[in-house]
Amino acid sequence: MKIDFSTSSRIIFGSGEFRKIPDLIKGWGHRAFVIRGNNPTYGKEFFDIIGFLDLEVTYFKVDKEPDIEMLCSAVKLARDNNCEFVVGFGGGSVIDTGKAVAALLNNDGDLMDYLEVVGKGLPQKNVSKPYLAIPSTAGTGSEVTRNAVIDVPEKKVKVSMRNAYMLPKIALVDPELTLDLPQNITATTGMDAFVQVIEPYVCNSPNPMVDMFCRDAIPRAAANLLIAFQEGSNIKARENMAWVSLMGGLSLANAKLGAVHGFAGPIGGMFHAPHGAICACLLPAVMRVNIENLKKNDSENLSLKRYSEIASWLANDLKAEVDDSIHFFETLCKNLKIPRLRDIGITKNDFPSIVEKSRNSSSMKGNPVLLPDEELTRILDLSF
Amino acid sequence: MKIDFSTSSRIIFGSGEFRKIPDLIKGWGHRAFVIRGNNPTYGKEFFDIIGFLDLEVTYFKVDKEPDIEMLCSAVKLARDNNCEFVVGFGGGSVIDTGKAVAALLNNDGDLMDYLEVVGKGLPQKNVSKPYLAIPSTAGTGSEVTRNAVIDVPEKKVKVSMRNAYMLPKIALVDPELTLDLPQNITATTGMDAFVQVIEPYVCNSPNPMVDMFCRDAIPRAAANLLIAFQEGSNIKARENMAWVSLMGGLSLANAKLGAVHGFAGPIGGMFHAPHGAICACLLPAVMRVNIENLKKNDSENLSLKRYSEIASWLANDLKAEVDDSIHFFETLCKNLKIPRLRDIGITKNDFPSIVEKSRNSSSMKGNPVLLPDEELTRILDLSF
Repeated sequence: MKIDFSTSSRIIFGSGEFRKIPDLIKGWGHRAFVIRGNNPTYGKEFFDIIGFLDLEVTYFKVDKEPDIEMLCSAVKLARDNNCEFVVGFGGGSVIDTGKAVAALLNNDGDLMDYLEVVGKGLPQKNVSKPYLAIPSTAGTGSEVTRNAVIDVPEKKVKVSMRNAYMLPKIALVDPELTLDLPQNITATTGMDAFVQVIEPYVCNSPNPMVDMFCRDAIPRAAANLLIAFQEGSNIKARENMAWVSLMGGLSLANAKLGAVHGFAGPIGGMFHAPHGAICACLLPAVMRVNIENLKKNDSENLSLKRYSEIASWLANDLKAEVDDSIHFFETLCKNLKIPRLRDIGITKNDFPSIVEKSRNSSSMKGNPVLLPDEELTRILDLSF
Repeated sequence: MKIDFSTSSRIIFGSGEFRKIPDLIKGWGHRAFVIRGNNPTYGKEFFDIIGFLDLEVTYFKVDKEPDIEMLCSAVKLARDNNCEFVVGFGGGSVIDTGKAVAALLNNDGDLMDYLEVVGKGLPQKNVSKPYLAIPSTAGTGSEVTRNAVIDVPEKKVKVSMRNAYMLPKIALVDPELTLDLPQNITATTGMDAFVQVIEPYVCNSPNPMVDMFCRDAIPRAAANLLIAFQEGSNIKARENMAWVSLMGGLSLANAKLGAVHGFAGPIGGMFHAPHGAICACLLPAVMRVNIENLKKNDSENLSLKRYSEIASWLANDLKAEVDDSIHFFETLCKNLKIPRLRDIGITKNDFPSIVEKSRNSSSMKGNPVLLPDEELTRILDLSF
């Protein structure tokens, strides 16, 4: 029984809670850096609130996954305007952009000094400037994770800036803000959240804190994702999915993952598709291959028991068979119109290089069973 | 579905994890203020680790619940020695002392400027100095709460210094450090932890984050407290109780409580007895009176359903009756040799003033049912 658990020092969750923004940022300063997504119709009331405050606001729009060039221009703009704090309202790309800006507003040097893999990976010396992170989707849970995922298109990889100071000062999750999400985004981000409470639960080194989050969230996701997709204005379903997303963020930040994320990172670097869509598309095949390998080689494995538990939660039936969970997700992905790997531009010729890059990814190391290359390839094949 | 959740930005839990202390405090500075409890036999290895580090250490011993005089002398000593960070190793009194010292090391003024009720209650301007809080008991969960309880003997009250900056930077919970606890402390602190996962679960405004902690912790406490008491060296039982204590701290800091704590605060100010002993002694009667009042006046109340759930967890039997939970705690308190109210110096003549002071305490406001004075008195009578 061991945990090493970090999160934002304050998490606020609830419908309508975004109206507390003026109170939340009191004392943070006068010059705000406000980051938003691409869609002008989301969160009108959020921007009304910001506009109404007596603040000097520098706005920045994020219209794709953050890359080094975009982040550098965001940091420059924030520094040039002497911004004292950051507010980010959007999907994972917006939230992550805010983390990097808040960090570099209070630390010298440039982004490359701090990036893993492609940069110097220096530690962040000072705490970040205060950052209020407000997700507009129910998906990444990035508001409670300590890294920003950054695209490096010329190297076809994604890398992270990662440290405990990157955790937003306040994570504000308001399900009301997700009511207007279009169906396709509800589907892919919702599946992202769903996967993020499945993989940490069945990973090879679970922990009791994260277990609680997953046990609470998996039944909620099973009962609510399709409803949120079909009836976007159903606030109860939106609330539950926003909660699942928050639990997913807390879980993935504090446990290991598995083959879905092991593949999703490299695939996301090589092909442009929403992270949630890639994860969703891979999940049924990963479950099938993991379950088959566990049954064959290690039938007493805790993860196999946990796959059984999940099956019973998904079916709301204690007698559900472990394989039922695979069918559940195959059906759910069809209903949510999740694309297949071929739909996002992958060909079978790409399989060897995907396997090559995924085999040793950090997420892959959390997979409940070690999968040889032919099994990894079979996952891609089944998801094709 | 609403939460406003704060905690230490990093929580580490696990047997033997205290050996990581040198890594954890790296970069915090050279001059440490180390607070310890009264018992020289606890945690020898902890002090060996501290002594071995290349630090200038100022030691401070806490041998009772912190009062203003003691805290002022601790702050003066820490300031005089220009301490850069704080390490606290002990029970709730030690942990709370550390919070106040860490706060005042980085903020001007003196303790009275910041105290609720008896002081000016000013907000804390600067973050606290880094504070590593390491409980030596499995009880208060104070390592993850944002207040320090301070005794004001001349006014016979306890007050708090309270704000989000008071949360220790790192909470390190190591069950190994509780192996040497004597039986009476295992009993009273263990019951403190147990009550702290019961009251937030049945309070009148539960929240889903805290619900998770309580659902996880109540069955663990039921299965392990008596074992930890009877076989102090049983590391599994100690682990579970340390976990319950941590969950209790997270729960009480982020939800309401009830009549047990509603009484325990004022009684603790008036009579000198361990907080956990007072809580334990009151719990069965509070449950009895709450359950009876709920059954009579509001039989569809969610809290009553939750008392039923608790009964089934305690008995590990889905068919357990709600009243079984009362008997469970009556028996447990007897087995743990928990004192009665009369044993801690209370007489029946004190009941009116206890009721008077408890009636409007903030914890009492979380009780699942509003209790008139005669019912409050009945609780005291049943616990006498």
